[in-house]
Amino acid sequence: MEVAFETYGELEEGGENAIWVCHALTGDAHPASHGEEDRPGWWEGMVGPGLPLDTRKWFIVCSNVLGSCYGTTGPASPHPGDGLPYGFRFPLITVGDIVRVQRELARYLGIRRLALVVGGSLGAMQALEWALSAPAMVERVLALAGPFASSPQAIAWNEVGRQAILLDLERGGTGARGMAIARMLAMITYRSGDEFRMRFGREEVDPSLGEPHPFRLQYQVESYLHHQGEKLVRRFHPLSYLYLTRAMDDFDLGRHGEEAWEKARRGGVKIMAAGIDTDILYPAAEVRELVLRLKQRGIPAVYEEIQSIHGHDAFLIEKEATGALFAKALSM
Amino acid sequence: MEVAFETYGELEEGGENAIWVCHALTGDAHPASHGEEDRPGWWEGMVGPGLPLDTRKWFIVCSNVLGSCYGTTGPASPHPGDGLPYGFRFPLITVGDIVRVQRELARYLGIRRLALVVGGSLGAMQALEWALSAPAMVERVLALAGPFASSPQAIAWNEVGRQAILLDLERGGTGARGMAIARMLAMITYRSGDEFRMRFGREEVDPSLGEPHPFRLQYQVESYLHHQGEKLVRRFHPLSYLYLTRAMDDFDLGRHGEEAWEKARRGGVKIMAAGIDTDILYPAAEVRELVLRLKQRGIPAVYEEIQSIHGHDAFLIEKEATGALFAKALSM
Repeated sequence: MEVAFETYGELEEGGENAIWVCHALTGDAHPASHGEEDRPGWWEGMVGPGLPLDTRKWFIVCSNVLGSCYGTTGPASPHPGDGLPYGFRFPLITVGDIVRVQRELARYLGIRRLALVVGGSLGAMQALEWALSAPAMVERVLALAGPFASSPQAIAWNEVGRQAILLDLERGGTGARGMAIARMLAMITYRSGDEFRMRFGREEVDPSLGEPHPFRLQYQVESYLHHQGEKLVRRFHPLSYLYLTRAMDDFDLGRHGEEAWEKARRGGVKIMAAGIDTDILYPAAEVRELVLRLKQRGIPAVYEEIQSIHGHDAFLIEKEATGALFAKALSM
Repeated sequence: MEVAFETYGELEEGGENAIWVCHALTGDAHPASHGEEDRPGWWEGMVGPGLPLDTRKWFIVCSNVLGSCYGTTGPASPHPGDGLPYGFRFPLITVGDIVRVQRELARYLGIRRLALVVGGSLGAMQALEWALSAPAMVERVLALAGPFASSPQAIAWNEVGRQAILLDLERGGTGARGMAIARMLAMITYRSGDEFRMRFGREEVDPSLGEPHPFRLQYQVESYLHHQGEKLVRRFHPLSYLYLTRAMDDFDLGRHGEEAWEKARRGGVKIMAAGIDTDILYPAAEVRELVLRLKQRGIPAVYEEIQSIHGHDAFLIEKEATGALFAKALSM
């Protein structure tokens, strides 16, 4: 299989100044630009010289996850047998599989120890998985807006999105239109009711812009969701969406046996988990529960909270608060 | 047009002992059985002799709303011009239109005054609309889990559901499969994360029962949602779902001008509004805001709250608490 990745800064001899950045569901291996000429990344301003993840000190790696569509092998990649896309022949994958690929990449790069593994949402799941599956290699974890295990409500949101994609496929579509619907739903869970109220209220769109259909776009909030859906369709693959949401559903740190927890304790990994007060996807209460359950298993864990109107996506939007957590985590 | 309705109890001479019961999105004109032989209704146990809406004292009416598919004219009804279903020729309707039909029915029945208009969710919107559009006729309103105006987040949930139905229709389907998806999403917003956690946790279904597909049903919560979607498909029309969700989106008491508010003040209508502490569709905070905004307009209004793990649907499930509110509202 192939793995797309990007690095920032230099790995010191001995390979102990590395930080691993894990991306979320539709992210890629490009958290930040590599210079002024380069395109901005999804955590722009967080990675670079003098920035929270300071490339003068740290060697920073971000790789596109297994099952995605930004260069790493996924369901849209050619099957080695016939050169045609894997499609549903692609096997179901877990966050454990995603991290196993990252471990292989870390070995290839000569990394011996990670000072920090950091990520939000699906990225938080990967960061936590790193601690349990490679405890000798991981010094610290910063998990933003992620749970100990996917809740049934989080599974439920994902399942509705998947059903929209599957309906589209079964009706002869490519799945793209269904994925736009899945994204519209997901965007509601990534933001907050208060943010929608502030941004959109009950404002309507210009009626002359809508289709003549009786169920044309009417409200600004609908226009926003449609726009978000269409944007994702241009950049993401519906089958990757299916596989990665299922990997999120299956995430449950409790699947690790006592042996893995014992190794994590002996490895001395320290975990910081941050909730977002307005998050409806992985509510702050679930992140507090994550910390509690880590502590119950003897893992040093601390809880932090980001205050934001933006909901789940605050880990991408509230750069000052998130940057401050990076500094705090690195000094654990 | 035709209107399906049911009545319970007897209308006194003078027509002043009437109570109007308003149903929610997919409800019908049958809130309760009319006797032991009859099928249960959606508010079974709430309407009958000696029950919270006591048929020995009150004449109780419930009618199927305009645009629905349980006997009242809607998009699936025959168009008078050609006898074929209206389909999208059916005009967009509002909660105001729904209540206008109910007023005509009330007149037909000889009702002069309503001691109470009560409903939850879309039913709450109708009950509030009654107060503003027929203030001389309405003595009291009990609005359960309904807002002053649909929030942009509530519009957003509805729009995702509509898009699933429209996708299905555009791909040559009947809209039923899309409506199942819309219902799956709606059910998440009708219940609470805590309830899902208690009921389903991360329990999986028996793998031998699933389809061989890689995205077969895996979790109990998915099985529950699929079941709810399939159940609605057997009993509701996708176009009614489109029209009625849009009517909900358009609901905004603020559209009534000062003249209507002045009439409501002079009419002396008293309003009780009850939120549900775990409601994520019309959160308790929005119901408190409704009461505040009514008071600001000089309407006597009180706030009550139902404590429940069940979320929005608590107004259907928590019969003891809801029944107690009926009694309290009738003694306002």
